[in-house]
Amino acid sequence: MKKRLIVLLLVIVLVVIPSMVFGADESVESAIDTVWVLIAAFLVFFMQAGFAMVESGFTRAKNASNIIMKNMMDVAIGSLVYFAIGFGIMFGADRFGLFGTTGFFGTGLSAEFLGLSIPIEAFLIFQTVFAATAATIVSGAMAERTKFSAYVIYSFVISIVIYPVVGHWIWGGGWLSKLGMVDFAGSTVVHSVGGWAALMGAAILGPRIGKFSKEGKPNAIPGHNITMGALGVFILWFGWFGFNPGSTVSGMDQSIGFIAMTTNLAASAGGVATMFLTWVKYRKPDVSMTLNGVLAGLVAITAGCASVSLWGAVAIGAIAGVIVVFGVELLEKVLKIDDPVGAVPVHAFCGASGTLLVGLFAVDGGLFYGDGFTLLGIQALGVASVAAWTLGTAFILFKALKKFNGLRVLEHDEVAGLDIGEHGSVAYGDFQLINIETIGK
Amino acid sequence: MKKRLIVLLLVIVLVVIPSMVFGADESVESAIDTVWVLIAAFLVFFMQAGFAMVESGFTRAKNASNIIMKNMMDVAIGSLVYFAIGFGIMFGADRFGLFGTTGFFGTGLSAEFLGLSIPIEAFLIFQTVFAATAATIVSGAMAERTKFSAYVIYSFVISIVIYPVVGHWIWGGGWLSKLGMVDFAGSTVVHSVGGWAALMGAAILGPRIGKFSKEGKPNAIPGHNITMGALGVFILWFGWFGFNPGSTVSGMDQSIGFIAMTTNLAASAGGVATMFLTWVKYRKPDVSMTLNGVLAGLVAITAGCASVSLWGAVAIGAIAGVIVVFGVELLEKVLKIDDPVGAVPVHAFCGASGTLLVGLFAVDGGLFYGDGFTLLGIQALGVASVAAWTLGTAFILFKALKKFNGLRVLEHDEVAGLDIGEHGSVAYGDFQLINIETIGK
Amino acid sequence: MKKRLIVLLLVIVLVVIPSMVFGADESVESAIDTVWVLIAAFLVFFMQAGFAMVESGFTRAKNASNIIMKNMMDVAIGSLVYFAIGFGIMFGADRFGLFGTTGFFGTGLSAEFLGLSIPIEAFLIFQTVFAATAATIVSGAMAERTKFSAYVIYSFVISIVIYPVVGHWIWGGGWLSKLGMVDFAGSTVVHSVGGWAALMGAAILGPRIGKFSKEGKPNAIPGHNITMGALGVFILWFGWFGFNPGSTVSGMDQSIGFIAMTTNLAASAGGVATMFLTWVKYRKPDVSMTLNGVLAGLVAITAGCASVSLWGAVAIGAIAGVIVVFGVELLEKVLKIDDPVGAVPVHAFCGASGTLLVGLFAVDGGLFYGDGFTLLGIQALGVASVAAWTLGTAFILFKALKKFNGLRVLEHDEVAGLDIGEHGSVAYGDFQLINIETIGK
Repeated sequence: MKKRLIVLLLVIVLVVIPSMVFGADESVESAIDTVWVLIAAFLVFFMQAGFAMVESGFTRAKNASNIIMKNMMDVAIGSLVYFAIGFGIMFGADRFGLFGTTGFFGTGLSAEFLGLSIPIEAFLIFQTVFAATAATIVSGAMAERTKFSAYVIYSFVISIVIYPVVGHWIWGGGWLSKLGMVDFAGSTVVHSVGGWAALMGAAILGPRIGKFSKEGKPNAIPGHNITMGALGVFILWFGWFGFNPGSTVSGMDQSIGFIAMTTNLAASAGGVATMFLTWVKYRKPDVSMTLNGVLAGLVAITAGCASVSLWGAVAIGAIAGVIVVFGVELLEKVLKIDDPVGAVPVHAFCGASGTLLVGLFAVDGGLFYGDGFTLLGIQALGVASVAAWTLGTAFILFKALKKFNGLRVLEHDEVAGLDIGEHGSVAYGDFQLINIETIGK
Repeated sequence: MKKRLIVLLLVIVLVVIPSMVFGADESVESAIDTVWVLIAAFLVFFMQAGFAMVESGFTRAKNASNIIMKNMMDVAIGSLVYFAIGFGIMFGADRFGLFGTTGFFGTGLSAEFLGLSIPIEAFLIFQTVFAATAATIVSGAMAERTKFSAYVIYSFVISIVIYPVVGHWIWGGGWLSKLGMVDFAGSTVVHSVGGWAALMGAAILGPRIGKFSKEGKPNAIPGHNITMGALGVFILWFGWFGFNPGSTVSGMDQSIGFIAMTTNLAASAGGVATMFLTWVKYRKPDVSMTLNGVLAGLVAITAGCASVSLWGAVAIGAIAGVIVVFGVELLEKVLKIDDPVGAVPVHAFCGASGTLLVGLFAVDGGLFYGDGFTLLGIQALGVASVAAWTLGTAFILFKALKKFNGLRVLEHDEVAGLDIGEHGSVAYGDFQLINIETIGK
Repeated sequence: MKKRLIVLLLVIVLVVIPSMVFGADESVESAIDTVWVLIAAFLVFFMQAGFAMVESGFTRAKNASNIIMKNMMDVAIGSLVYFAIGFGIMFGADRFGLFGTTGFFGTGLSAEFLGLSIPIEAFLIFQTVFAATAATIVSGAMAERTKFSAYVIYSFVISIVIYPVVGHWIWGGGWLSKLGMVDFAGSTVVHSVGGWAALMGAAILGPRIGKFSKEGKPNAIPGHNITMGALGVFILWFGWFGFNPGSTVSGMDQSIGFIAMTTNLAASAGGVATMFLTWVKYRKPDVSMTLNGVLAGLVAITAGCASVSLWGAVAIGAIAGVIVVFGVELLEKVLKIDDPVGAVPVHAFCGASGTLLVGLFAVDGGLFYGDGFTLLGIQALGVASVAAWTLGTAFILFKALKKFNGLRVLEHDEVAGLDIGEHGSVAYGDFQLINIETIGK
């Protein structure tokens, strides 16, 4: 009897209690992870409002409705097609290290397959809002002259294939992830994809009427609501606290506070660097450029936010704040490309630079920490490959759109504003606008 | 001695440790639930900003201050009276299945009584922001012509009795909850209550001056700031991630990620459906209608967000996106009711439809899943009863206000704008407005 | 053998399992705390957007870019210098009860030293956004006439020394914390510091051109975008749910829901009290004053949000809603100080009053609960000391700036607007402004 008691005891102690305890703990840890990932997803979703405010605020009043309509459709269309197709290409069973092949139409992928501590739908909503972010970057660079129907098709294509393939390479078990490329929250996966597509789109589309003089000198076309643009930047900064710390995909991860700090320091350093640089360069601290400096810092730290030191984050942010200023000049003065909101310098140039800088500043593997050129080389290969893929597919896409659908609105509609031309309404019906003659009536 | 040791051991193993473990776990699970519910409550609170931006953006500049003042008072007054009275009517001890009778003035209700895993105050703040949401829906439909004093009284009454009674029926243990009606996050409880009250208010109030021609043909009165309206929609979409997934009232609930997905898919499908429908119907994709299409999808999925499949959510969203377009036409062209922001089609029509569609699309109990008409019948009964109660009480309220307080501002003030007439100030002092003559000076 | 088995059993039961269980639990509790603190920090960060919208919305269009630039720099500069220096002064090893002396440049402070349940970086980001809040309060009071370079230096100094010293006194183990002063989330530490610095800054700077007539009568200078100002208030209210409940620095704390309730009730009572008071006093309910009434309630409850009852919170909010109205009159009519957005009445007067009211309303220690004058005396000492320190250091700072850098822009630039004068651009390029002649061209 005593023996049986001891056996019973042993079973209780070694099997029942631990299983209760660890069963409980596992569900608790999973709940913490799920809550964290969802809140991060909501914050990243909210970045769409930030993009809408930045892009419409930095462009003209006559195109404001059109821009927010494009942003709204990036989320709406993107959410649907990423759910149906993109997610499977990005995270489905790998083929050749190049793309996923399972999990389409909301079936077939499970938390077990992906090794997640959270329900698959929590991961799916998190990835959905990331995909929508990549898509929406382009709308700013192509603002004020793109046909709405062409933009809808573009938005469909980037969410269904261009972005998910890159995502697979780096986050979905593809060839770059196997090489050990570090792009923690997506300087390359999200921002450079949006940025390179924006570059190609703006280049093929051509500049807005009046952007360049006959001699090719760029004219400034000021935005219509800088306050709203600034609100957009604050919203983006706020949302980035979901973007970067959320990319641990775990609230149990001890580093989420650290990542929030690197994110905030880089944003701050970016803004401060740009402010002082424009102060020196143009004699006055430039407002919209400084706002872009903050975004530049955020984009640049996104790859390395979990890998660099706090002071490394300050350095990366400050470097990005400088890059964005010269990037705008490069684009306008050298390449003669019209990017109304500076999406290319911010997302492409700083996304790529930020990814490369991980090769220098990573505490573990970085050149500055004595770990040689290996990581830097991998980062460079990743950056270049993603640029090539995105520029290539975007080239085909926009050329095809130009040929078969038309990419640009008629001159008359561009002058009158796309709000009237494409949507038959105006954004600010009660306000007297200065260039009223261009708005038509 | 050995025996006592074994007994001691048994006590430790079977009593002490489990109690420590599960004591700890319980407090941990309660903390996760509390954190989740509070964050959800904060997001739902923030929807007030979204309503303020949508409602002022979609109406005229001369009434913008008045509208945001009404929104602000909906939260402020609503928070106070719901705390003092409404919460007790909604969740107090049930009488006849019709209303609660305890827990007034912040006393008497406990987490134990309500079977909550979270402190009562966490539940109270969550319910408070829901009540404020129902209240604020009305302000858009009655915009640009309602006396401010009448609105303050209305806001008081809906938060103190109209909304809490419905809440008791469906969420507080009342007769509809006993029947098994499914309204997970409040398509009916919150949105249709706001929507039906809005319908009655707008009908009794009459249309704005100039809304209908002498022949009864509706004129479009465009909003003064579509960008701000779009920001409002983004904020509402963002806040809805608290509204729906938060309605689990538990972060331990494994379905919160799933609910975030159904919410997002329905919003997206609503926006896309409306965009394409208006494109076909009016030749151009309509911006403000599409924004309402997103809201329509969100309102419609709110009842069934935890009960339908992901593709069911897409279907519900798309159906709502169609309903809102025809709903606006029904209201304006057939009923000749002036609802400046489309609150009635979005919240009443799509709130009711979304609740009914649960009867079709619920994976467990829905007609489309072979479970017959029972659930559909219950849903229909619930929708109809709530409509009857709300329309009835709102009728009495607004008629009484009309008689004893006055419901509508003087014609002079309506023309000059309610900002001047009701508050003695203007919203945009530095801007030249187009209809300057109507603003007076 | 049996003995060894029992010993083994004992070890397992008494050592291994508890350590596993409590090891696990500790990490789980720490994760919950970390997630909570980070989300609270993000919400507090977002308050910066609220300040930017309130301050620019309540002032004139010609200075809007300048104001948001100041707000942006408050966060950016503040984040960097608080990280480098301020944090160490606030939380480093105490010297004389007056300031901290360790932990500069991101080194030397640990979670252990501070007795935190969360990683040090999570605490650091939380404290960083609080510091930035104090800084940004000043920009509204000094709006529309301050030299940008002077503001940048001010922003640097308040974040590096003025604020951290007060923070050390009350939150960092300094002399006021030892006395038992209650300032839970910073009515005094954050808001009154910002408010007193704002008072001194506005006084030394002098009023805007045209604010006072020759006889010294104040003229109203209306804001340019009240809707945006209201959005700012909603954002601030939203962010305050991070500010107050987050100040538990623990998601395990059972009182977080209670604190959310006191916060919300005080805000609501503040808004309602101000609305009715202005309705009686000025015949019409005043919009921008009511918005400030909400903020007044929020500022006032911040000290006692965890110490007073729910009805106490209503009372404190209502009192603050009255104080802000008379505070504005005191400032303008008696002191002849020009504070364009009402930052001083809201943050200084209501911050101080709210802290004092804890001495009356604290359930534990308050005069109204029969606990005598002790707490009230300590609160008064704290309020007075912080006022003296902040007014004193701000006096030196702004006088020095006036002497060595210049504090105020040239009259020409003030008339033309600081957007042009200080930044060479305008915020609303497409809009026809009414006072177009003052904007220059």
